[in-house]
Amino acid sequence: MFSSHSLPPALLEKVFQYIDLHQDEFVQTLKEWVAIESDSVQPVPRFRQELFRMMAVAADTLQRLGAHVTSVDMGSQQLPDGQSLPIPPVILAELGNDPTKGTVCFYGHLDVQPADQGNGWLTDPYVLTEVDGKLYGRGATDNKGPVLAWINAVSAFRALEQDLPVNIKFIIEGMEEAGSVALEELVEKEKNRFFSGVDYIVISDNLWISQRKPAITYGTRGNSYFMVEVKCRDQDFHSGTFGGILHEPMADLVALLGSLVDSSGHILVPGIYDEVAPLTEEEINTYKAIHLDLEEYRNSSRVEKFLFDTKEEILMHLWRYPSLSIHGIEGAFDEPGAKTVIPGQVIGKFSIRLVPHMNVSVVEKQVTRHLEDVFSKRNSSNKMVVSMTLGLHPWIANINDTQYLAAKRAIRTVFGTEPDMIRDGSTIPIAKMFQEIVHKSVVLIPLGAVDDGEHSQNEKINRWNYIEGTKLFAAFFLEMAQLH
Amino acid sequence: MFSSHSLPPALLEKVFQYIDLHQDEFVQTLKEWVAIESDSVQPVPRFRQELFRMMAVAADTLQRLGAHVTSVDMGSQQLPDGQSLPIPPVILAELGNDPTKGTVCFYGHLDVQPADQGNGWLTDPYVLTEVDGKLYGRGATDNKGPVLAWINAVSAFRALEQDLPVNIKFIIEGMEEAGSVALEELVEKEKNRFFSGVDYIVISDNLWISQRKPAITYGTRGNSYFMVEVKCRDQDFHSGTFGGILHEPMADLVALLGSLVDSSGHILVPGIYDEVAPLTEEEINTYKAIHLDLEEYRNSSRVEKFLFDTKEEILMHLWRYPSLSIHGIEGAFDEPGAKTVIPGQVIGKFSIRLVPHMNVSVVEKQVTRHLEDVFSKRNSSNKMVVSMTLGLHPWIANINDTQYLAAKRAIRTVFGTEPDMIRDGSTIPIAKMFQEIVHKSVVLIPLGAVDDGEHSQNEKINRWNYIEGTKLFAAFFLEMAQLH
Repeated sequence: MFSSHSLPPALLEKVFQYIDLHQDEFVQTLKEWVAIESDSVQPVPRFRQELFRMMAVAADTLQRLGAHVTSVDMGSQQLPDGQSLPIPPVILAELGNDPTKGTVCFYGHLDVQPADQGNGWLTDPYVLTEVDGKLYGRGATDNKGPVLAWINAVSAFRALEQDLPVNIKFIIEGMEEAGSVALEELVEKEKNRFFSGVDYIVISDNLWISQRKPAITYGTRGNSYFMVEVKCRDQDFHSGTFGGILHEPMADLVALLGSLVDSSGHILVPGIYDEVAPLTEEEINTYKAIHLDLEEYRNSSRVEKFLFDTKEEILMHLWRYPSLSIHGIEGAFDEPGAKTVIPGQVIGKFSIRLVPHMNVSVVEKQVTRHLEDVFSKRNSSNKMVVSMTLGLHPWIANINDTQYLAAKRAIRTVFGTEPDMIRDGSTIPIAKMFQEIVHKSVVLIPLGAVDDGEHSQNEKINRWNYIEGTKLFAAFFLEMAQLH
Repeated sequence: MFSSHSLPPALLEKVFQYIDLHQDEFVQTLKEWVAIESDSVQPVPRFRQELFRMMAVAADTLQRLGAHVTSVDMGSQQLPDGQSLPIPPVILAELGNDPTKGTVCFYGHLDVQPADQGNGWLTDPYVLTEVDGKLYGRGATDNKGPVLAWINAVSAFRALEQDLPVNIKFIIEGMEEAGSVALEELVEKEKNRFFSGVDYIVISDNLWISQRKPAITYGTRGNSYFMVEVKCRDQDFHSGTFGGILHEPMADLVALLGSLVDSSGHILVPGIYDEVAPLTEEEINTYKAIHLDLEEYRNSSRVEKFLFDTKEEILMHLWRYPSLSIHGIEGAFDEPGAKTVIPGQVIGKFSIRLVPHMNVSVVEKQVTRHLEDVFSKRNSSNKMVVSMTLGLHPWIANINDTQYLAAKRAIRTVFGTEPDMIRDGSTIPIAKMFQEIVHKSVVLIPLGAVDDGEHSQNEKINRWNYIEGTKLFAAFFLEMAQLH
């Protein structure tokens, strides 16, 4: 299906050559960005200062590329302890406004998860360190590397004095790891201003599912997080003094949590599967096309046996079927050793990963009704309160949108292979947010390999992924220009 | 039946007067003892140091009373994680050895349950704080207050330069809340030395069943503490990345814990009730004689509704029937807020209160077999390990022994009432241990009121209980001298 198209070979070759020749500079810039400790999770003034510095460095880089840059003041954040911390600005940037060209908006974030060298890191997390082609450092793959790859691609056209094939916009934030505080309000406000001319939105904030084969992500699961509290009184009891005569909150809670999911992973809440999109023959084929070495996956996960034995079943249960996980219990005895306590008040925590076309508020009602039903059958004198503390919608895109086709072609050009068409079992709420507010096609084009370890110790991006990813974005610009 | 006896009124009056006059000193000493954070449950060096300090302070106090004190080195304790911690010494003390007098040995412990001010305490748990006649502090009633009441009673005789009516021995330990580590070996070793001249053993480590009416305790339940570990791998998972394809350890554990007890408190482990002593008509009558205002009991417990509606059923289910309580889970998410974790390895903790004539090792087999049965039906690929980490026998005494009669008389003198003849739903394993090793009569004379909250937040002892309890022990010495 791609045989009829061809990119201007001379230009593409020049751009790729430029990128190869300047790869050490690109790595050096990544090193400078990783060195900024832009941790948005730990709410302390020092890291906030680093976040402001990070955003200023990025704004400066974009300005030097010729972009029109606005750093939007995001005000401040009230923490639960009463402390107030400033929120780093969001960068809105524009490069080119040729009405005959399509406009692609790139979303990225420059904040990172906490990293503590003492805690399992083999190198200083804030000093980008290359070992065997792997660039180790906090933020290397999530998300500083991919943001820079996009910028590098633009800079290659600039350096070669070539017109950009598309108009480009940037929205870059510094609070993603802390829940993208205040971002939705900003996008809503800019809907008819900054976003008015945007045709496509590209995000590069997840990973491939293999070490060498690129992927395009067209959907993510949502998440509904529940807390179910069972209370007898606000004080604990001694099991010798009260054991035998109480409706014990833990017995109630364990029964409630035990009613949620069976041993095969099937969710037992009535009606929960009603709105799950039916599986089509076409969809089954996309799963079959994905390369996944189950043996290697099991080994790298260090899981003896999964609930399912085939690649297709495993991928579908990670991406297109809901799952329910019980996370833990607050208020019970959770320390090492033995304590003969009857907890007086306990809170069970679980969440359901939602898939198209499940609806957050319908799920909330179903779960609440189910738990009330189970609880009422126990005739317990305790009080039960169910609350959904977080409700994030699933997201799915149309994989026949222009930018999906362009991304596929670019991947073919750079990597010589078809991409894995994948979803993400986690939630990337901004994808759904852009789709719902801006009403434009959203695509996720990850650059990092499956073993990059985002959020964990020894996060890295491979030099190969970073540099070929830069080429991928350059090729993508040209493909978009052809297809738009 | 007590009309024929009378104590020397002048001496008794002098002793009571002394106790009343010096009550603030007694409270001050309790404050100093509560200030020592002698937590034996959390196995950390800091608390162990506090335990050693506590035992040294107590040894010094007894020495100043003229007692011959030995602090027995108890060696050290190997923890499951390989760590080794020293065990605080056990105090063996003797005061008087007049062969014409009876010898009463008092057992007490000076270690306490964990207490965390953040977690529901209205005052600093280690600062004894008096509010409306209530002395709040960790260990105030369990067991520092009662130990000091006994010491205060002795000190009153000493200060008044009166001969002690009985020879007195003390055995005081610092590991009771951690299962009296190594105590049994010591008692076994001292059986024909320290314990050779002992006629009676008194323990004061439980509570009345009312706020104002004293009690004597002639039986306690035992306890079998279980841990059931379910493990997939030693690292946690992210629920977005793995939710839907795993046998989640929490789902297994919740099912295992949910199979233990039904909503009416009935234990579901097959065979568990087989050896419970049959209920006799005579026994029913002792329950009928006990005054228990159910309304008041419910109010003071702040429990809306118990599992049973009559006094007799409630008392029997606390004292003569087994109960099962689920204490909590180690390894899962237990903090406030939301975390989308799939715990990789979790440990459920529960215990069964045993009654005559249940057997610890039979119960261990029954519970293990039951959990293995439930687990195998789940076809989970996780690993389950069941262990009984503590097995304590139930205990029951003959209520016509001399010291039972003496205690009844002393209660009549100090409080003007007959005591409730009760059992304790908790485990006081040393009662059973003393009975089995030393072969002497053991009695429990509690001093604390039903609402003292041992083991829970805001533990307290009433000033009235502490001071009248001191008088009770003084009167008990004189009654023992008469009856022996």
